[in-house]
Amino acid sequence: MAHIRLRCVECGASHRADVRALYCNTCKLPLEVEYTGVGALSRSGLGGLWRLGAPAPVHSPSHVVSMGEGMTAVALLERSGLLLGLASLFGKLEFQSPTGSFKDRGTTVLMSALKEAGVDEIVEDSSGNAGASIAAYAARAGITAHIFAPASAPAPKVQQLRVYGAHVHLIEGSREAATQAAKAFVEQRGLVYASHNLSPFFLEGTKTFAYELVDQFPEGLPDHVVLPVGNGSLLIGAWIGFRELQASGRVKRLPKLHAVQAEVVQPIAAAYMGRPWRPQAGARTAAGGIAVAQPPRLRQALRAVRETGGACVAASEEAILRWQRLLAREEGVYAEPTSAAAFAGLELLARQGVIGARDVVLVPVTGMGLKDMAPAE
Amino acid sequence: MAHIRLRCVECGASHRADVRALYCNTCKLPLEVEYTGVGALSRSGLGGLWRLGAPAPVHSPSHVVSMGEGMTAVALLERSGLLLGLASLFGKLEFQSPTGSFKDRGTTVLMSALKEAGVDEIVEDSSGNAGASIAAYAARAGITAHIFAPASAPAPKVQQLRVYGAHVHLIEGSREAATQAAKAFVEQRGLVYASHNLSPFFLEGTKTFAYELVDQFPEGLPDHVVLPVGNGSLLIGAWIGFRELQASGRVKRLPKLHAVQAEVVQPIAAAYMGRPWRPQAGARTAAGGIAVAQPPRLRQALRAVRETGGACVAASEEAILRWQRLLAREEGVYAEPTSAAAFAGLELLARQGVIGARDVVLVPVTGMGLKDMAPAE
Repeated sequence: MAHIRLRCVECGASHRADVRALYCNTCKLPLEVEYTGVGALSRSGLGGLWRLGAPAPVHSPSHVVSMGEGMTAVALLERSGLLLGLASLFGKLEFQSPTGSFKDRGTTVLMSALKEAGVDEIVEDSSGNAGASIAAYAARAGITAHIFAPASAPAPKVQQLRVYGAHVHLIEGSREAATQAAKAFVEQRGLVYASHNLSPFFLEGTKTFAYELVDQFPEGLPDHVVLPVGNGSLLIGAWIGFRELQASGRVKRLPKLHAVQAEVVQPIAAAYMGRPWRPQAGARTAAGGIAVAQPPRLRQALRAVRETGGACVAASEEAILRWQRLLAREEGVYAEPTSAAAFAGLELLARQGVIGARDVVLVPVTGMGLKDMAPAE
Repeated sequence: MAHIRLRCVECGASHRADVRALYCNTCKLPLEVEYTGVGALSRSGLGGLWRLGAPAPVHSPSHVVSMGEGMTAVALLERSGLLLGLASLFGKLEFQSPTGSFKDRGTTVLMSALKEAGVDEIVEDSSGNAGASIAAYAARAGITAHIFAPASAPAPKVQQLRVYGAHVHLIEGSREAATQAAKAFVEQRGLVYASHNLSPFFLEGTKTFAYELVDQFPEGLPDHVVLPVGNGSLLIGAWIGFRELQASGRVKRLPKLHAVQAEVVQPIAAAYMGRPWRPQAGARTAAGGIAVAQPPRLRQALRAVRETGGACVAASEEAILRWQRLLAREEGVYAEPTSAAAFAGLELLARQGVIGARDVVLVPVTGMGLKDMAPAE
């Protein structure tokens, strides 16, 4: 890792690169990767998103833990566009990934960095898409994974973690309790906390979303990208990618990045509006993937939205479930509620005139409906 | 459809192309597409497998019903190869498809042909991957779909069909009873039977599997492709594709195509061995996708195996479930049992010396584990 350092997202302080480093010593805020030299990674023979040529925090192809993630399809969503009064609406089917969600982009890079650093045992907390992704790639890398999840997590999700051979630790109490238990376990055992929310290496994978769009839209990028945002790993990753592409002269104008949250869990949307917000006891959203009450990268997410000229909205539960159904029935795309939320947010943005009728819009369909099935009728 | 005709797979008799034609008038056996001229389909702007340039039974890009299926990743399966004593074992992750299985290859072409023919209501029988795929693409095409399934079909699979807006008809009794009910409904209502098992157009989609391999292995095709086979739509499709590529001079030597069935449902494997076989009452395989007791294209499947120098084997339930677990734990690939069966078959072929240690082997991972979860531990 001689060609990278880790930079504080707040104060800019530069730290030596280390897979264990998650926070700035001074600010206690998360870090991001800074390239100080050219990596020596040869991409010959590497597939999926590793072909894209994005700077990567890994040196040797033999450390790359990949199964062909990325390079997901872009599908025209004609009827949804018509409904919204938009001429060009595209979905990027991010669920066409080895474990069924966009998280594999982040995980392939994070796990490769861990493997290169010689790590053989990690801890993560998630019962959702990130947990499945980390469990799968850890299995592939030959790294032992401990996944902490709430005891209330749906049985099929826990089962998926176990199929990959992960050690699942079920913790009574809230989602936050699982995070605390994971952190305590890390301390106690001296293990590496491979947090998809905190690790700067995860964002080095999700940034390839931007590189792929440049590839897939050779005649010009979409005007708007509307994303479901919980921790913001795709939003922030895409922003990092677009800025790199701009710095290297490959991209002139960045798409506006818009963040969509659920009404009942909207720390980022509320901060964007300058409104106070607190988690309400018992309030639940169907969009479990973005139900994050205290996102550690909140300020970074806000900057990604503001600096690209985007907006942040919160979608109602009614609209989220309506869009899940609508996408399946009109487009043949079975998205999980978290992904449907982005379309519910797009509806608000189109209605408010933030997005115009002739603008080209792209929405990542981040996770598959099979992972979080629609309620039976 | 002026540039195609339908040919009997047995007697070679040529029939006028028609989306309703499923059997030869004389032999009562299934048909395949024969190209008598060059199609007028311009591929500009089309994505996924439509970019590959394979001859297609569709004229106008506006009739193409696609969401970016195909172009699935190839992943090296190093540890599984090591276990089997094989130097080069690859998995092609066919579950990276819009509905989570390889069936989308066949469905995109079948549904496009139906749309071009002006069909607006279809009937299909399947509670598995094919049903989900047909339901999704019918939704996208704006075609009403009636899906017949056994009343015993797993609730999540039935639910997936309904999410796409399909009319689900649950039929008491065996899988065969659902097929009979579908056929009766077709007769009674004068509808089109869009059977993935019988329609020759479905194979025109699955044949793109061969075209993609040529693209992904520019230095030479794998020596062996080992496939799970029930109705044989991927096996027969791949064979059609490879023969087209051979006829056009793009491919010199075809890979050997090997068919794997489950021990308890093995009409094709038994026919290959020249052994009598009858379905046993109550015998069930975890590999539901290949549990087809009377495959209508049995002879074609056998020819695909024999003419390419392949073999046909039957895998035990123990080996199928062992490989499902092994793939998840060693490779991070969560396959459904049907897909794991191909690896169980590969194990037999390697042990028998049919496949040698230095041969390059590819196995399609046809469906995702999430669609047919491993039993909880």
